[in-house]
Amino acid sequence: MSVLRLEHGIVLTMEPGAAPVTDGVVVIEREKIRFAGAAAQAPGTPDAEKVDCTGCVILPGLVNSHTHVAMTLLRGFADDMHLQPWLEEKIWPTEMKLKPEDVYWGALLGICEMLRGGVTCFSDMYHFFREGTEAAVEGGIRVCPSGVLLGFLPNAGDLLGEAREFVAEMQGQPRVHPMFGPHAPYTCPDALLERVVAHAAELQAPIHIHVSETRKEVEDSLKEYGETPVQRLARLGVLDQQVSAAHCVHLTHEDRAILVEKGTGIAHCGGSNLKLASGFAPIPQLLAEGAVLGLGTDGCASNNNLDMFEEMLLAGIVSKCVTGDPTAVPAEAALAMATREGARSLGLGEKIGTLTAGKQADVAVVDCRRPHLQPLHNVVSHLVYSARADDVIMTIVAGEIVYREGILERVDEAEVMAKASEAARRLTS
Amino acid sequence: MSVLRLEHGIVLTMEPGAAPVTDGVVVIEREKIRFAGAAAQAPGTPDAEKVDCTGCVILPGLVNSHTHVAMTLLRGFADDMHLQPWLEEKIWPTEMKLKPEDVYWGALLGICEMLRGGVTCFSDMYHFFREGTEAAVEGGIRVCPSGVLLGFLPNAGDLLGEAREFVAEMQGQPRVHPMFGPHAPYTCPDALLERVVAHAAELQAPIHIHVSETRKEVEDSLKEYGETPVQRLARLGVLDQQVSAAHCVHLTHEDRAILVEKGTGIAHCGGSNLKLASGFAPIPQLLAEGAVLGLGTDGCASNNNLDMFEEMLLAGIVSKCVTGDPTAVPAEAALAMATREGARSLGLGEKIGTLTAGKQADVAVVDCRRPHLQPLHNVVSHLVYSARADDVIMTIVAGEIVYREGILERVDEAEVMAKASEAARRLTS
Repeated sequence: MSVLRLEHGIVLTMEPGAAPVTDGVVVIEREKIRFAGAAAQAPGTPDAEKVDCTGCVILPGLVNSHTHVAMTLLRGFADDMHLQPWLEEKIWPTEMKLKPEDVYWGALLGICEMLRGGVTCFSDMYHFFREGTEAAVEGGIRVCPSGVLLGFLPNAGDLLGEAREFVAEMQGQPRVHPMFGPHAPYTCPDALLERVVAHAAELQAPIHIHVSETRKEVEDSLKEYGETPVQRLARLGVLDQQVSAAHCVHLTHEDRAILVEKGTGIAHCGGSNLKLASGFAPIPQLLAEGAVLGLGTDGCASNNNLDMFEEMLLAGIVSKCVTGDPTAVPAEAALAMATREGARSLGLGEKIGTLTAGKQADVAVVDCRRPHLQPLHNVVSHLVYSARADDVIMTIVAGEIVYREGILERVDEAEVMAKASEAARRLTS
Repeated sequence: MSVLRLEHGIVLTMEPGAAPVTDGVVVIEREKIRFAGAAAQAPGTPDAEKVDCTGCVILPGLVNSHTHVAMTLLRGFADDMHLQPWLEEKIWPTEMKLKPEDVYWGALLGICEMLRGGVTCFSDMYHFFREGTEAAVEGGIRVCPSGVLLGFLPNAGDLLGEAREFVAEMQGQPRVHPMFGPHAPYTCPDALLERVVAHAAELQAPIHIHVSETRKEVEDSLKEYGETPVQRLARLGVLDQQVSAAHCVHLTHEDRAILVEKGTGIAHCGGSNLKLASGFAPIPQLLAEGAVLGLGTDGCASNNNLDMFEEMLLAGIVSKCVTGDPTAVPAEAALAMATREGARSLGLGEKIGTLTAGKQADVAVVDCRRPHLQPLHNVVSHLVYSARADDVIMTIVAGEIVYREGILERVDEAEVMAKASEAARRLTS
């Protein structure tokens, strides 16, 4: 039996209330965690492959709860623009040219980046989801894939059928947790959303959807339906399913109450919201009210990377300034959003998100023996306020080491960068 | 004669309006830049040491225009707290215990971090400035050191005398550009500020001072003096000197006009302002009005690192959301703040800040052959929105390679981390 023993590290299980364990050990058996805690309590593992984690923090792998991963191809292609010209003149015309293999290489490029940065699971909504998922399986990362259902497309019904087929086929595949992806309330009429709900309920699959990202979206919804996007999703039964709602920037008090009551997962995308000037999501309020809050990078056209350390930092510091309260969103809360709460927001709280015996062994190891992470007063503060994606030296998904000290074990990174650049050149020329 | 030739890179001179030069070359002779531009125009250098910069961007070294570098010792020691208990219960009592050698090791730790992150010059206001400066000279980085003059100290006069002696002694030393450091308008009475002005004028030395960091500071000034801190500094003649004003968060329209008219350098510390909930500085307005704006990290107790890539990102994206305008503070402006404008803000615009023949050769090389910096649509966007400090593979100060691919040429990094941690333990126990 394959056993991996991470030892001499500082273990952050991220179980609620758990303190960092110095001289900690994590024992992994096949794809699961067998033990995470103090060396003194650890089981003996004579045949284990040992990894010396001296000076390192061992924590749950980070969960990127909202992205469009193949948009790496458009990283830096169009920045500092107003939303409509950005979409209409740059992003959409380029996406029209996308071929399945572009998505494969673009996704793989993003997967390289995420694995290097300790991300072990990501939720991806994009076109050509089969190729995106293939890239994830290839790279060894855990993925929650969903297609993009747009009500205005003439073939919306066919796309839903394809999505259903895909979800049914992928359920139970290792490291793949398929979802339905109706794009957003404003792009999906009631009838389509109701059909999505029926399929999702039948297959017991979650729904991934953009919600209340911009002020305009909420105003338009009020005009057209007399209700906010959240109220509308509640009325249509969408929120009775397991839902991951991306963005949720512009929420009324009642919207927040609905999301909390329904246990809707929220994917807060702070970097994207800032860069696109979408607004400041009410993170401190949502946390205080008990919402299930994860963090997402959004796509690379609006971030411009897939760096969850950056998202933790932003979640930690931006709300402080918005509320004028330096105690808002403490480091512990930001780190929980990137791990445990992110997992819960995707309906994976039982499987991943903490280092707990019996869960899937999705793990990141961060090396603190670096000038910017010394002295080691507080590892949680360091992870949120000072660490960077590059401080990750090992990433483990389902018990498999997929990244170690500069080397991606399953992917030829140079080939991926070359193929993705080639695709990007074709798309943007 | 020692000649260094950086070749096959993308050269960003950061001269106003200059576009990135592909297949660029930078030729360095002794401590100065001899040439920066297209390979086709580059002079022959048969005896040069050649550095292959394929896939890399060659840009001016980053300028950290405001920090308290030895506060690395308190990184992660006290976070997520209100300002007064943070200062009174945590920071000040610990700083009371500081010894000169603590500052030396803490400064050297921060210098290791900065050199690794492409910072070639920093402006430092802190206690035991002789030891801080010694650390900078040791590490090979350029420094603008200033002590901390506090009017309420019984020995404020002696401290000013010491500062004057230090400034006179250090002027003309290579890589050292001493300044006077009256802490802030609210901690310095008029008489002290007037004496500082007299010394600064006589020695032709700049002044580094915190200005209008918090709303309370401005309100208190209006109550006590009937004028804002900026108005008061103008009245006292401070702003007729070369001044670097840190923070400048809470400015009136008239304050901004004064700062622009006087050519006062501003050190915007976005990360610190967010984390301490100080407020959003009016960066787009200041840029539009022609202010001289640099970027600073502030000290590690309020940031918590010395990462200028993070500061560029924040400068680039936060103002967009505050103003609701995604075109505010474009990448080009953020990068200029971290280089050319930062140099100008410290009165060093003639010496550093762009890759221009005749200037000091302060240079950073960023490796873009990494997943998060591909494809290479736009290097300026990448540097601001996607790059990280770790992407720097070479840092050159005054023509000397001080950092190269993981190795600090002048410093024993393991020793520095050990000594700084030891000091931190003593201070906080």
